[in-house]
Amino acid sequence: MDTRATGPKLQFDPDPTKYRHWTLAVEGEVARLTMKVQPFGGANSEVELKSNSYDLSVDIELADAIQRLRFQHPSVKCCVITSAHDKIFCAGANIYMLAASTHPFKVNFCKYTNETRLAIEDASQHSGIRFLAACNGATAGGGYELALACDEIVLIDDGSSTVALPEVPLLGVLPGTGGLTRVVDKRKVRRDLADAFSTLAEGVKGKRAVEWGLVDAVVPRSKFADTIAQRSRDLAAKAPQVDRGPGIQLDPIGEYKHVTLKVDEKARVAELTVRAPQGDVPKNAAEALPKGAQGWALRMARELDHALLRLRFEHENVGLVIVRTEGDRAKAHAVGELLAGPEKDSWILRETRLLLARALRRMDVTARSFFAVVDQKSCFAGPLFELLLACDRSYVLDADGVEVWPGPLSAGALPGWNGLSRLETRFLGDPQRAQKVLAAGKEGPIDAAAANRLGLATVFADDIDFVEELRVAIEERASLSPDALTGMEQNFRFAGPETLATKIFGRLSAWQNWIFIRPNATGERGALTMYGKPERPQFDYRRT
Amino acid sequence: MDTRATGPKLQFDPDPTKYRHWTLAVEGEVARLTMKVQPFGGANSEVELKSNSYDLSVDIELADAIQRLRFQHPSVKCCVITSAHDKIFCAGANIYMLAASTHPFKVNFCKYTNETRLAIEDASQHSGIRFLAACNGATAGGGYELALACDEIVLIDDGSSTVALPEVPLLGVLPGTGGLTRVVDKRKVRRDLADAFSTLAEGVKGKRAVEWGLVDAVVPRSKFADTIAQRSRDLAAKAPQVDRGPGIQLDPIGEYKHVTLKVDEKARVAELTVRAPQGDVPKNAAEALPKGAQGWALRMARELDHALLRLRFEHENVGLVIVRTEGDRAKAHAVGELLAGPEKDSWILRETRLLLARALRRMDVTARSFFAVVDQKSCFAGPLFELLLACDRSYVLDADGVEVWPGPLSAGALPGWNGLSRLETRFLGDPQRAQKVLAAGKEGPIDAAAANRLGLATVFADDIDFVEELRVAIEERASLSPDALTGMEQNFRFAGPETLATKIFGRLSAWQNWIFIRPNATGERGALTMYGKPERPQFDYRRT
Repeated sequence: MDTRATGPKLQFDPDPTKYRHWTLAVEGEVARLTMKVQPFGGANSEVELKSNSYDLSVDIELADAIQRLRFQHPSVKCCVITSAHDKIFCAGANIYMLAASTHPFKVNFCKYTNETRLAIEDASQHSGIRFLAACNGATAGGGYELALACDEIVLIDDGSSTVALPEVPLLGVLPGTGGLTRVVDKRKVRRDLADAFSTLAEGVKGKRAVEWGLVDAVVPRSKFADTIAQRSRDLAAKAPQVDRGPGIQLDPIGEYKHVTLKVDEKARVAELTVRAPQGDVPKNAAEALPKGAQGWALRMARELDHALLRLRFEHENVGLVIVRTEGDRAKAHAVGELLAGPEKDSWILRETRLLLARALRRMDVTARSFFAVVDQKSCFAGPLFELLLACDRSYVLDADGVEVWPGPLSAGALPGWNGLSRLETRFLGDPQRAQKVLAAGKEGPIDAAAANRLGLATVFADDIDFVEELRVAIEERASLSPDALTGMEQNFRFAGPETLATKIFGRLSAWQNWIFIRPNATGERGALTMYGKPERPQFDYRRT
Repeated sequence: MDTRATGPKLQFDPDPTKYRHWTLAVEGEVARLTMKVQPFGGANSEVELKSNSYDLSVDIELADAIQRLRFQHPSVKCCVITSAHDKIFCAGANIYMLAASTHPFKVNFCKYTNETRLAIEDASQHSGIRFLAACNGATAGGGYELALACDEIVLIDDGSSTVALPEVPLLGVLPGTGGLTRVVDKRKVRRDLADAFSTLAEGVKGKRAVEWGLVDAVVPRSKFADTIAQRSRDLAAKAPQVDRGPGIQLDPIGEYKHVTLKVDEKARVAELTVRAPQGDVPKNAAEALPKGAQGWALRMARELDHALLRLRFEHENVGLVIVRTEGDRAKAHAVGELLAGPEKDSWILRETRLLLARALRRMDVTARSFFAVVDQKSCFAGPLFELLLACDRSYVLDADGVEVWPGPLSAGALPGWNGLSRLETRFLGDPQRAQKVLAAGKEGPIDAAAANRLGLATVFADDIDFVEELRVAIEERASLSPDALTGMEQNFRFAGPETLATKIFGRLSAWQNWIFIRPNATGERGALTMYGKPERPQFDYRRT
C-alpha cells in the first residue's frame, strides 16, 4: 500500500473531545454537526485538505459522531449537518489524496464512506434521528453525496453556491459514495436531468436545483439560519417516536476482550475468533443498561466492527478469514433472546441490535472470503449464529458435542443489505427451510447431524477427514484470483431483492472499481491523474 | 480492435440454410437445436473452437435460430438444446479467442451472449416455447450458462460428465453470461453451495448436481434419449397456450429501408435516423400478416437492432449517437395503436411487439450516449416515441410544428430491463406524470411546449439557441471519459426495481468489466493469459 496515501495507522474509534474536523453541539432536540476540515490535519499531513475536502480521518470522525448521537445523546431528534466555512459546505473527497492512493485503498475508502452515509440513513429510519443538510455554500461531489444521505437538503441561494457531482466531467470517475444511485433511486430525479446534472461540472443552483429535485429548498443568506432552525425543529417534531436514552458513554476500544484477530500474512489467511459472554447475561433492559459500553453484545459488536476495519486497511493481502467462535452456547443464546425478546424496542437493546446489524453488514461487504468452522469448541449461538450465516462457507465437524443454536435474532432482527434475514437469503428457493431452522433452535441446540440436514453445513465431515478437508480448502481458496473471488462473492452474498444499498455496493462500486483502474482515470494522462494540472487528460475513446 | 480476435466483419443475420455450428430440426411441437461447432469455422479461422466452445459467430447463429423459432416455426412448443458430440455438451466461450480479444470486444461479446440467453427466457415467457437443455456430456462455463437459460436442465449420468463454472478457479474471471446470477437468483441454489460449486474447476455430477439444485435430473446414457423425448413432450404440453402461426420467413436484412446510420468517426458521433412507415398502415392482424417480414414495424425493429450491433462491434470509438426520427406521425402512431390494440395478442402483432421490445432493450444496454433530437421533421410517435424515452437526453425545439405523440405502446407493452415501462422509469418519483403523458397522447399529438411541461424535454430551446446548444452538448459529451459515461449511464438507465437482467447487466457485467482489465486476469502472468500454458498464473493478492 502506498503509505503516502494512508499515512499512519488509522484510529477507528477517535476520542470525541479531540475531533480535528468536526464539532458536535447538542441543544435539546437538535444537534449541530459542523465540518471544518483542518487542511493539514488529515491522515497524511502532506496532503492539504482544502475547501472542506475530506480524507478517511474526516469520515471516521463523522461515523463516530453519528454513532455517539445514538448512544450518548438521547435527546437529539434532528441533526443539522453544516459547515463552518462561509462559502463552502463541502468539496467532497480530496482529489490529490485519491489520486495518490493505491487501488485497494481507493476502493476501501469509498466503501467506508458509503457505510457512514448508510449509517446516517439507518439512524434516521430506526433511531428517531432525522438529518438536515444545511448546505451553506458550494456542495460538490462527496459533499453533495453527504447531503443526499440526509432526510432534507437546504441549499443557500447566494447567486453562486451550487450542488454538483463533477466527478464524470472533471475526474473521469463516478461519484463514489452512492451519488448516482441516490439521485435517481432515493430522490427519484428524472434520469435525463440526472444525466445533465452529473455531466455539468459547475453544478446546479437556485430554483432549478429545486425544480430538478436535487434539493428540497433554496434560501437566501439572510433567511438561511432561521430557515434551518425552523426546519430542524419541524424534522425533530416529525421524527419517529422511539424509546431513547438515558445515554451511555462509548469508551475507547483499546485491547479486544471478546474478539481475537490472528493474521498469518505469509499464508494470507486470518483467524477471527469471537467469544461468548462469560459473566451473567442480563435478563432485561434494566439489567443491561448499567453495563453500558461494557455489556458483552455491545462491546463484541464494536470489536468485531473494528477488527473488520483493521482487516480491510491493515491486512490487504489477507484474502481468507477463518471464523471461529468459542464459549458458553447457552449464554450466547440467552443474549439473542434478550436482544430479540419482549423488550427489544427498549433503547439500549435496540441500539445494541442495530450496532450488531451494522457490524454484520460491514462483514457482508468486506472483500474477504469467510469460512466458518463449527467444531466442539465453537459457539455459533444467539448473535454468533449469525456469523455462520454471514460466511461464504461453513465447515461442520461430524462429532458429538458439536452444536449450533439459532435464536429469535435470526428471524429478521439483523437484516442484510438486501433487507432479508440471512436465513431468508440462504434459503431463497425454499423459505420454509428458514422457518425449520428457527423452529429447531426453539427446541434447543441443534447437533451437527441435524444442522447438516437443515442445510447449515457446506461441508460436513468426520474427525478423520475434517482437518485435512479444511486445510485443502484454505490452501485452494488462498491460491485463487483475489479479483475473481471478490466479484463472485459480491454476486452470491446479495441474492434476492435489491435495495439502495445493494445497488451502491453491488453495482455502483463495481463500475467504480473498474473505472478507477482504467488508464482513462489513473493512467499517466488519465483524468484523475491530470486533475489540477494545466494539460488536458487523454482518453482511449473505445466504448465498452 | 484486435482483428485476430474479431476476424472478418460479422454477419448478424445469418442464412439458416448455411449455419455452420447448429442444426435446427423441427418435428411437430418439438424442435431440436443441436450444437456442433466447426473447429475452424468461427469468425477467426485461426482460433480452433475445440470441444463445442463458441465464439461470436456461434452465438449469432443461436440467436438467429431462437428468433426463427418464433417467426418461422409456429408449431414448436418445446425446443431441446443439445450437442452432436458424444461426451461434450458445450465447453463455453473459447478461451483462446477471449484471451486474444481486446477489452471492448470481450465486454461486447459477453453482452451479446447475455442478450441471446435472455431472448431464450423471453421466448419461454411470452411466446409459448419452453426450452430443455439436454446436457449429453461435459457442460462447462458458458455451456452451463446456456443450460441455465433453459426451463429445465437434464444431465447425463455417465460417471464423468459434470456441470461446471470453472472460470474463477481456472481463468481468474467470472462466468460472463449470467451464470452467477442465475445460480442463486433463478435456480436459487444456496449461496454456500454456489460458492463451493463455482470454485470447483472439475464441476459437480450425478446425484449431488440434483441435490444442490444445479440440474433438474440426471439420467443414465441408456435412458437419456427416451427421457429427453418424454420431458420435451411434457414441457410442450405445459407450455403457455398463446396464439401461434401461420409463420413467416425472415428474409436477409440487406440494405436498410427505414433506418440510416451515419458515422462520423473523427468526431466520434453517429446519427441514427428511423423513418415512419410510408404506405398504408395495416388496420388489423389479418392485414399485417401478408406483409410478413416486410411489414414496417417488424422490419424497422430488425434494422434498428442490426444498426445497434454494428455500432457496438464496428464503431467502438463512437461514444455518442444522435437519434432522429422522420416521417408521418399519424402513421407511426397508428402502428402503435395496432400493436397495443385489441388484437395485440394475435401472433404476428405480439411477436413484432416483442421483437421491438428486445431491440429497445438492446439500446438500453448499448454503451453509447443517446441524445434524441425533436424538431419539425421528427416523428417521435407510436413505437418511435419509445426511442425518445430510451435516450439519455432529449433536445426539443421550441417551435410550431414540433410534436411528439405517445401511444398505448408506451403504457407497458415495451418494458425495459427493470420490468417497468420507460415512462414509469422516467417518472419514478411521480407515477401520475407517466399517466398524464399517456392521457395527453390519447388526445392527439403533443406540441413542443406541452411536451416540455409534461417532462419530456431535457433541454427546450428556441430557434435562436437550439442548434448552438445541441452543438455544444455534442462536443462536450464526446470529450468526456468513455468509461465514466458508461458507468454513469448504467446507473441512470436502471433506476427502480431490479430483475435478473438488471443484475446481469448492471452488477455482474460491471464486476467482469473490472476483472477483465486487471493484471490478475489479463496481465502478462494473469490467469486468462496463462490458460493452457504449463506455468501457474501470478497474482497481486491485494483484496479490494
